[in-house]
Amino acid sequence: MDIKTLQDAFIHEISDMHDAENRLSKALPKMARAAKNPDLKKALQDHKQETDQQMNMLDQVIDMLKLDVEREKCEAMEGLVEEGEEIINEVDEGPVRDAMIIAAAQKVEHYEIASYGTLVALAKKIGHDEAADLLHEILEQEKSADKKLTEIAESEVNDEAMRQAA
Amino acid sequence: MDIKTLQDAFIHEISDMHDAENRLSKALPKMARAAKNPDLKKALQDHKQETDQQMNMLDQVIDMLKLDVEREKCEAMEGLVEEGEEIINEVDEGPVRDAMIIAAAQKVEHYEIASYGTLVALAKKIGHDEAADLLHEILEQEKSADKKLTEIAESEVNDEAMRQAA
Repeated sequence: MDIKTLQDAFIHEISDMHDAENRLSKALPKMARAAKNPDLKKALQDHKQETDQQMNMLDQVIDMLKLDVEREKCEAMEGLVEEGEEIINEVDEGPVRDAMIIAAAQKVEHYEIASYGTLVALAKKIGHDEAADLLHEILEQEKSADKKLTEIAESEVNDEAMRQAA
Repeated sequence: MDIKTLQDAFIHEISDMHDAENRLSKALPKMARAAKNPDLKKALQDHKQETDQQMNMLDQVIDMLKLDVEREKCEAMEGLVEEGEEIINEVDEGPVRDAMIIAAAQKVEHYEIASYGTLVALAKKIGHDEAADLLHEILEQEKSADKKLTEIAESEVNDEAMRQAA
């Protein structure tokens, strides 16, 4: 990490998110396959598509600003994805596991909400206005994905899980 | 992980957050010492106190419901704390590092916002109303801590960082 300026910090954060989205894009299909509730399955499949689009949008920002991004390993997303995999491997299929998949996915969404929140603020401060708009668009998508998961938990999955016999 | 019911999932999530808060409580003093901006330093010190109180509140929930919690390792918080340590070790002291400390701390806060959001929803659904109130109180504290960090970034640190010479 050779970081001296806010621009360097911005590049570091973009590189981190690029790796994070890449890891998430690989994890989401497994989570979608593991989900039993059809609305949850669809939400995870839809978010996989959205995640791939977001990687393209990050590439657009990188190209537009001619950023010299480095291959970063996002330790946090690695840990978040591991938590999700643990749930899938160790809990039997059904609504309780669905509730836990939602919990894991919302932790991922909140990681991204925090990260894109920072990226938008830095882009605006540095004067990368067009990049700030693109990053803001991604931020709003992450917030919607999180809200959708809350709706599925509250309107369907948590009730189904309460009815699941021990 | 032997999880069959929503109550088991609730216990798993509480155990995870207990470990997460414990890790954070050890990391926050290092982050506060590394911060140069006095308001950021104070916000991190204050949040260390709050985090210790939150661990007590989690213990209260555990005692109140006689939960059989297990020693969980929160992989995600481990990764989040590592990211913070990397910044402190590899970036020189000053406003750019402060901006990055804020970014790391907000990722932590959002991890907690997602987790306590889930815990409140599960506690309500199961009928642990008193526990839900305590967990909701913690959730609101995490949201305030996140908001405070945004304010410090936007009103002070990001401007200081822009003025920092390369």
